[in-house]
Amino acid sequence: MSNLENARCEACHADAPQVSDEELKELMREIPDWTPVTNDNVMMLQREFKFKNFKQALAFTNRVGDLAEEEKHHPELVTEWGKVTVTWWTHAINGLHKNDFIMAAKTDSVVDA
Amino acid sequence: MSNLENARCEACHADAPQVSDEELKELMREIPDWTPVTNDNVMMLQREFKFKNFKQALAFTNRVGDLAEEEKHHPELVTEWGKVTVTWWTHAINGLHKNDFIMAAKTDSVVDA
Repeated sequence: MSNLENARCEACHADAPQVSDEELKELMREIPDWTPVTNDNVMMLQREFKFKNFKQALAFTNRVGDLAEEEKHHPELVTEWGKVTVTWWTHAINGLHKNDFIMAAKTDSVVDA
Repeated sequence: MSNLENARCEACHADAPQVSDEELKELMREIPDWTPVTNDNVMMLQREFKFKNFKQALAFTNRVGDLAEEEKHHPELVTEWGKVTVTWWTHAINGLHKNDFIMAAKTDSVVDA
């Protein structure tokens, strides 16, 4: 089990540091199914999850939504028939904070819940 | 109240007709808050809904999801903190069918539910 999965998000302010290139490399090893993507110059973590139908996709969206509310850190959730695309980044710093890796690991943990 | 809101989706096959330009103009009058957008050459109906927080946004996503399951016609739902972007189109015909306008009107009806 990833250590990230059991970590808690820390409060994140505009002056919090983005993860360094070195940290990024190390943290990505813990969430190998995620892809770092850049959108409007903001680095984000993205993963697509497949499901058998819309209902199961929406149920997953709700599980990730519950995680987000617990940690007060919120993703973008694109729900479609049979598919949910989850994207994590930290608005306050316009980039990736360790919190995003924690949330990605927690997201992985509720796929089969 | 829009007539569309109370209409039911009809089963839609690959040979069903897309709405004509004339129909599009007429149907758009019934859902004035929606915008026709073109994505990968496919015309879609899109509207952004604002909310006070993530929880209310996700609750709306679920109400639209319930509508989708009832009518067996499914949108793309982008849920973010304080915002849901709903996009309707008909995959089977790669474009807009009257069903999409019906679903847009029904979506409007559950904003304040």
